[in-house]
Amino acid sequence: MSARYFGAAVNRLEDPKLVSGAGRYVDDLHPAGLLHVAFVRSQRAHGLVRGVDAGAAARMAGVVAVFTMADFADLASGPMPPLAPHPLIKTPITYWPLAATEVRHVGEAIAMVVADSRHAAEDAAAAVEVDIEPLPVAADAIAALAADAPRAHSDRDSNLAARLAAKFGDADAVFAGADHVVAETIVTHRGGCHAMECRGVVAVPDAMGEDLTVYTSSQSPFLVRRILAAYLGRDERHVRVVAPDVGGGFGPKANVYPEEFAVALAALKLGRPVKWIEDRQEHFLTTTQQRDQIWTVEVAFTAEGRMLGLRGRGVHDNGAYAPYGLILPINALGCFPGPYALEALDVTLDVALTNMVPTSPVRGASRPIVAFVLERMADRVAAHLGLPREEVRRRSFVRADQMPYETGGKARDGSPISYDSGDYRQALDLALSKIDVAGFPARREAALRRGKLLGLGMASCVEDTGLGPFEGATVRVTPAGKVVIATGASSQGQGHRTVFAQIAADALGVDINDVIVDAADTDKFPLGISTIASRIAVTAGSSVEMAAQKVRAKALRFASNRLEAGEQDLEIVDGAIQVKGVPGMSITLAEVSRALAGAAGMSTPYGMEPDLAATAYFESQGLTFAYGSNACEVEIDPDTGDARVVRYVVVHDCGRLINPQIVDGQIIGGVVHGIGNALFERMLHDPEGQPLTTTYADYLLPIATEMPRIEVHHIETPSPRNPLGVKGAGEGGTIPAAACVISAIQDALGPAAPFVAHHPISPQDIVAMLD
Amino acid sequence: MSARYFGAAVNRLEDPKLVSGAGRYVDDLHPAGLLHVAFVRSQRAHGLVRGVDAGAAARMAGVVAVFTMADFADLASGPMPPLAPHPLIKTPITYWPLAATEVRHVGEAIAMVVADSRHAAEDAAAAVEVDIEPLPVAADAIAALAADAPRAHSDRDSNLAARLAAKFGDADAVFAGADHVVAETIVTHRGGCHAMECRGVVAVPDAMGEDLTVYTSSQSPFLVRRILAAYLGRDERHVRVVAPDVGGGFGPKANVYPEEFAVALAALKLGRPVKWIEDRQEHFLTTTQQRDQIWTVEVAFTAEGRMLGLRGRGVHDNGAYAPYGLILPINALGCFPGPYALEALDVTLDVALTNMVPTSPVRGASRPIVAFVLERMADRVAAHLGLPREEVRRRSFVRADQMPYETGGKARDGSPISYDSGDYRQALDLALSKIDVAGFPARREAALRRGKLLGLGMASCVEDTGLGPFEGATVRVTPAGKVVIATGASSQGQGHRTVFAQIAADALGVDINDVIVDAADTDKFPLGISTIASRIAVTAGSSVEMAAQKVRAKALRFASNRLEAGEQDLEIVDGAIQVKGVPGMSITLAEVSRALAGAAGMSTPYGMEPDLAATAYFESQGLTFAYGSNACEVEIDPDTGDARVVRYVVVHDCGRLINPQIVDGQIIGGVVHGIGNALFERMLHDPEGQPLTTTYADYLLPIATEMPRIEVHHIETPSPRNPLGVKGAGEGGTIPAAACVISAIQDALGPAAPFVAHHPISPQDIVAMLD
Repeated sequence: MSARYFGAAVNRLEDPKLVSGAGRYVDDLHPAGLLHVAFVRSQRAHGLVRGVDAGAAARMAGVVAVFTMADFADLASGPMPPLAPHPLIKTPITYWPLAATEVRHVGEAIAMVVADSRHAAEDAAAAVEVDIEPLPVAADAIAALAADAPRAHSDRDSNLAARLAAKFGDADAVFAGADHVVAETIVTHRGGCHAMECRGVVAVPDAMGEDLTVYTSSQSPFLVRRILAAYLGRDERHVRVVAPDVGGGFGPKANVYPEEFAVALAALKLGRPVKWIEDRQEHFLTTTQQRDQIWTVEVAFTAEGRMLGLRGRGVHDNGAYAPYGLILPINALGCFPGPYALEALDVTLDVALTNMVPTSPVRGASRPIVAFVLERMADRVAAHLGLPREEVRRRSFVRADQMPYETGGKARDGSPISYDSGDYRQALDLALSKIDVAGFPARREAALRRGKLLGLGMASCVEDTGLGPFEGATVRVTPAGKVVIATGASSQGQGHRTVFAQIAADALGVDINDVIVDAADTDKFPLGISTIASRIAVTAGSSVEMAAQKVRAKALRFASNRLEAGEQDLEIVDGAIQVKGVPGMSITLAEVSRALAGAAGMSTPYGMEPDLAATAYFESQGLTFAYGSNACEVEIDPDTGDARVVRYVVVHDCGRLINPQIVDGQIIGGVVHGIGNALFERMLHDPEGQPLTTTYADYLLPIATEMPRIEVHHIETPSPRNPLGVKGAGEGGTIPAAACVISAIQDALGPAAPFVAHHPISPQDIVAMLD
Repeated sequence: MSARYFGAAVNRLEDPKLVSGAGRYVDDLHPAGLLHVAFVRSQRAHGLVRGVDAGAAARMAGVVAVFTMADFADLASGPMPPLAPHPLIKTPITYWPLAATEVRHVGEAIAMVVADSRHAAEDAAAAVEVDIEPLPVAADAIAALAADAPRAHSDRDSNLAARLAAKFGDADAVFAGADHVVAETIVTHRGGCHAMECRGVVAVPDAMGEDLTVYTSSQSPFLVRRILAAYLGRDERHVRVVAPDVGGGFGPKANVYPEEFAVALAALKLGRPVKWIEDRQEHFLTTTQQRDQIWTVEVAFTAEGRMLGLRGRGVHDNGAYAPYGLILPINALGCFPGPYALEALDVTLDVALTNMVPTSPVRGASRPIVAFVLERMADRVAAHLGLPREEVRRRSFVRADQMPYETGGKARDGSPISYDSGDYRQALDLALSKIDVAGFPARREAALRRGKLLGLGMASCVEDTGLGPFEGATVRVTPAGKVVIATGASSQGQGHRTVFAQIAADALGVDINDVIVDAADTDKFPLGISTIASRIAVTAGSSVEMAAQKVRAKALRFASNRLEAGEQDLEIVDGAIQVKGVPGMSITLAEVSRALAGAAGMSTPYGMEPDLAATAYFESQGLTFAYGSNACEVEIDPDTGDARVVRYVVVHDCGRLINPQIVDGQIIGGVVHGIGNALFERMLHDPEGQPLTTTYADYLLPIATEMPRIEVHHIETPSPRNPLGVKGAGEGGTIPAAACVISAIQDALGPAAPFVAHHPISPQDIVAMLD
């Protein structure tokens, strides 16, 4: 197999369309007869729904219908099925499509107006009168776990949704025998995610009247189908879900939302296409959020700085519902012990229900939180011993000669966590070398002369990627000679079209522009899991490779018969199978496709199965583990507390690179995400659960002018666990970034400053610490 | 494998829906924003289009657009691709979607009005002024082949589209050495087909704006997709074609029609759903017709009545276009020598273009014509020798001990025609026994006493069925435990849903009501050929069996692991795999499906590929040959010429019967079809090509009160050429029926009457023959 495209920095095939405004996002869909929705939402964080008066609204111009949940009684009722059931959650903690009895966070939808236009719908929604009887509010995760705390759900006995634990080794013995122990409480505050595109859904009843198509800005079209079909009591075959172009996912769009169900119900009820597009205010109020974990941990370590064990407890703010089960807290536990070869681990995590928007995975999905905990503690150990921070890491890392390395932890399915390959120390040493750690004292001096405090930060991480069980792909050569890849894996901008095309074009000897990707349409591929957990290159990418190789073999077999040449004497060049060294002895893939498509009364050529196509599912052979180390410099203005990241170096190993340009884009975007988390993004609520930061004037996002140039360097250690040798790359930029920035701030503040134990850290925080 | 359903007279699963009015035919589709079409059609059989003035029409209320072909220039232009290209037709003889330069039969579409309602469209269509310059008309196939005949296409040199031949043995020697030779000219007049549902098409642009869905009352959705995509210059992936419930096909709906293209073009042009439903008058004018072959043949035979050879020439009236290539005349040649073991054959068939609606296959597809020729000649031989008609047949049949029997002829793909199995004499003897041939003289006497002439008829035939190359099927168990069969094979009422469900339910041990068939949707299965040529039970039926057995094996493998039992100890009962003799040790197919559908982070169970589904293509192992003999009695009123079929016996062998009730329905419907052809249905034109019989007042269809009770008896000789042992049954009723009825009429008329050499035979014909 030639590798004309694999490994090359091919320009993204999707970009000409996307950057010229020709993308087809949900809001670009205008099926004939379309109606528009505005939701009537709760203004209270907790209360009983006593009544909805839609009389005035229903009479307003352009209004077609005003629905509450009761109006859908002939179609469905009750809470939505859980996306990821967990045995610890006995009764699902899920939304209803429209809240019928109790609202549990500000913004929860109670009624919907369907009208000829969005503005008519919004005007009428404002005229719907909702009577809510207030209930006491659980607005803080720690307080919510107190015995006398108000219940987030009036029908539940406790706000403790679950207590989870991860444990290996004999922690008591390790701690008893350790030279030193340090303890800290570390907090990551709640934030949003803020994809460029808000959510949206268009539901279209099929012309045949039996099927419903739901276009949704989702990372999980197959999960939407699964639970929507279950909710409607229909077979999955009657529900088609399509994720068209999606402008960023990052995790929250992996959930299934009540609006998707409500819009589907309205379309079925009215027999017409119905659209809802989330506005940015709704996004602040209703799209799932992240972080908000509080960890109290202690680390045992040797006098030489080798970390031996970690134990502690965390509290996870789950928000009001658990549509995604316990994935996020389970992930947190799975991230220990990170890149460190600990002898013992003993951590528990309490999952607290509160009257706030649910939290769910956001890029990294608890991994940045745990990396923050581990890296803060590594710095703490170094400070305790007066050692360089890198020395504690070097002495504690899993070594390259220990690979594959079983940490002692367990993956989500109960299998042992086993790091596949890599050299963690090499990554850290390279990062420190690239940032020129030796020159840092001089740069710090120079900054000080300008009245600024310069700090050097570092952080390492290891990240499980390529989550199972599978993705699949069908590769087909059309009669026109195009190569069409159908896969369940949806894209939210990652560049799937390009990387899948690189893989298939190499396998089939075609121009990359002749490869088309049909993704995220449940009618075009039968099964899919979700675009989450940095898993698509591993699972779907490998499926594309496997299916394309099957198609290649089939085409060569046909050509071998037709051209009367041995398969070993054939090659595929520019879409034509030719006999090597015999110009003109060739047949195009298009011709093979047409021959195999059949014509009435003709024979099947060479007894071959029709259809120049093949399907393959790559089934996970265990997780693949990307890793890396970051280093950065942060400059602090001691007068204002302003912290500015001035240099940033990433060393990352995600195995073989399919497309370095795309991987670099992922890494750089991920670092920006992490810097935003470290310095800016925080979602605040008052004690009544009212969100206080619901515009970009109050909630700060990182912007380009505040970002340094980010240098990315790769180590390529192929994973032995898939045919491409790849590991996931979508989240690795974010995971250590906040830890790295805070490490640099701590360093800038100097040894007299208190331990920096939370993020985001504000200028006010910094000024206070310098006092 | 248990055979709970295979072979049983299961009630048709589709009928509760269809007979209660809940079917979804094309005209039942009302997508939001739908527009309606009326076509402006030629009132002349031949002429040049000089101009179209749509000014007044375009200004009428409700009119959205008036299109001629020029308006679609940005989308496509020129003639439609041929459905079945043939090397003898150098330039395609095909329609344009709208005639732009020349019209070649009355009813050809020139312009289309798109409006808010059908009535608005029709009113406006009547206001469109079309200027046609008349050209001379070719309105008779024989005359059209004269050197100085008017050309049906002004740009073609000749009306001879092709001359085809079939030949084996040494005809000259056989004729020279034969004891006797008789010659006749035999005519089958032109008729229509007249499915209960006229044609219809709804084209819906996809919400995504890239794809077009075409719902059409077609037997050939995959062919519609293939040539529509080619015509639009699109890849097939952008065109979805769905045949919803279709109310009868019988052949004409296997074509692709200009209206399907015009409606698709209008929908693309306007970006809205567009519908056209053929009314009955349009059906008479534009849907393809049948018959109209004139054969002059001579038969050589021994003094004992053994037929030795046949030679002759035919003329086939092709009508104005050849969208379906030369399928119909090729079929005619392939039907010789029928059930007879001839030593030589030498026939040619001239295909004549005329300015009438094209002819294309109708139930039997030339086979009834050739059966009429062969059976008329067999009767003629018997009369010549004074032998009983059955003796000539018995002495001439291919014998059971000769099976498999190569006739000497060639199939469409050039392979030798080889009859697979059967006992032709047994069928004839059984038919004569069942009609009580011994008692016939007494019944004739009794009739005569009532002033009626009673005749006994007989006819035999052999029919190639199960045409290749393939159909395919995917069988999938859904998470709800339903078994969904996806196949390209469309149904027009044949009962596919039932017979496929019988096969799959047996293979998978489920209740037949839990099996669903998704057919005829190009998005639900990748490839298909067409529902023609009595081929679906053989090809698609076998595919369902093969795919279902693969699914069974997969389910058993899963269960064997889960239940820790050997596969040989498992059985599937009522949708659950259970350990034989161990109640409670079981797992449902639904549970297996859900386990294989996967959940994020879980392992693939037992290393099995996801998706409880399998695809199989049955590839034809050579044609299967159904056969049979019919016998009937016809009573003639010598005063009025009224001929009434009073008894009818069918003996038919289509191999193993999947569902005797459905096969009997096919046979009985087919006989009615043939009786209609023999006695009633004739499409007349004047010398200018104007159709004269365009209502059911002028064109006679057989109705229930004129039909006898039809007795059907089966012989079941399994075909060795497919796993089910089946042969096709859809056309076998029709093929010999007209020959059988005419044989009885000839018999009733008595030895003094002239040779009855054509059908339909009218009361006037009969009275004239009795004079």
